[in-house]
Amino acid sequence: MAEENKVILHKTYASSYAMRVELALKIKGIQFEYVDEDLSNKSPELLKYNPVHKKVPLLVHNGKPVSESLIILEYIDETWKTGPLILPQDPYERARVRFWANFIDQHLIPSTRKVWSTTGEEQEKAKEEIMEKLRILEEGLKTTNHENDNLGLLQILLVTLFGSYKVYEEVLGMKILVPENTPLLYSCVTRLNKLPLVKEVCPPHDKMVALVNVYRQKLLKSSTN
Amino acid sequence: MAEENKVILHKTYASSYAMRVELALKIKGIQFEYVDEDLSNKSPELLKYNPVHKKVPLLVHNGKPVSESLIILEYIDETWKTGPLILPQDPYERARVRFWANFIDQHLIPSTRKVWSTTGEEQEKAKEEIMEKLRILEEGLKTTNHENDNLGLLQILLVTLFGSYKVYEEVLGMKILVPENTPLLYSCVTRLNKLPLVKEVCPPHDKMVALVNVYRQKLLKSSTN
Repeated sequence: MAEENKVILHKTYASSYAMRVELALKIKGIQFEYVDEDLSNKSPELLKYNPVHKKVPLLVHNGKPVSESLIILEYIDETWKTGPLILPQDPYERARVRFWANFIDQHLIPSTRKVWSTTGEEQEKAKEEIMEKLRILEEGLKTTNHENDNLGLLQILLVTLFGSYKVYEEVLGMKILVPENTPLLYSCVTRLNKLPLVKEVCPPHDKMVALVNVYRQKLLKSSTN
Repeated sequence: MAEENKVILHKTYASSYAMRVELALKIKGIQFEYVDEDLSNKSPELLKYNPVHKKVPLLVHNGKPVSESLIILEYIDETWKTGPLILPQDPYERARVRFWANFIDQHLIPSTRKVWSTTGEEQEKAKEEIMEKLRILEEGLKTTNHENDNLGLLQILLVTLFGSYKVYEEVLGMKILVPENTPLLYSCVTRLNKLPLVKEVCPPHDKMVALVNVYRQKLLKSSTN
């Protein structure tokens, strides 16, 4: 790899935010290296290059750091003009996609966190909250281009967040992404899940179940402490 | 105004988010109309065009709605190519600006809300939290272009949020934006405050004091209920 085009992705295994970036780099056909971060012992580069949040994903392009997954995705799209577009070209379509990306990050993801850190009635309430937000997102998706296998920004977000919906079902014992509630989202995610690039980036079911079980136990423990 | 270029801004008086959009439209020299929203009795257009959040600012361009202030600012910059640029052209500089814009919206503004809804020790703690975040932002600003009177995205955010820092001092009885803590931010805001466009958009001191006093009493009442 030529020094003038060196791309390094700092990530953790199974971080859906990092998967977004990995998927975008592969969609564009960009050569890159990984640094697998241990969050209990972060690399000096992560601390140096992302001193404000100290989080993955972090992209280092020719020694210049870019952090926060949505910002990295826009950076990738604006820097590498070859390969498929991640955002549409039309300003109005771009605004629509950014609106729903923000909805996912600022409204949907906080609700999904609740379902992992609760049990019983509280968890049932959190599930209803997610399903209501998924219905809102479903309505929104109807106004964007969603009917093909194009991996744009929203498709990247959806498949890295809900591609492992069967893992949710196994670990939580509840169905969240179902065709009866959100037919469009369900068919979109199941269709995208079959793409070779997606299979390359998203960890296999059994590994995810094991990881997610650890995550759930940790969240339950910290919420009862 | 030709029908094919009709721009309507739904706003409320003294919403700093709406001021961002108003300032951006004026920087670009775009002709537009206002709708002043009464948040206790929102217009049918606001409910129809922003059904998810039902919030101002809302921009309606030739009948097409765009909401959320940062998304609207990018839309304006991408749609009207004439006039000064709001975001830099270089992808890396754009990523830096987006990073600090997100920091302001997701980390700094939640802290400023705390200082308005508390008193005594709790308020003192909230003030310290803001001042610490301002120091982080000050360090960040050093890496962006901040030394001229160019009204770019970050300058728009800073002057609409902290331009009325003297109102904060009068109503809260505490100084938050001071040259001893953040010399760069202080000089940036005081310099931008003198620009004619900024004076046009930001309400005068006395009106802000009256409005902000009502806001503070409402927050204090709801936090003690």
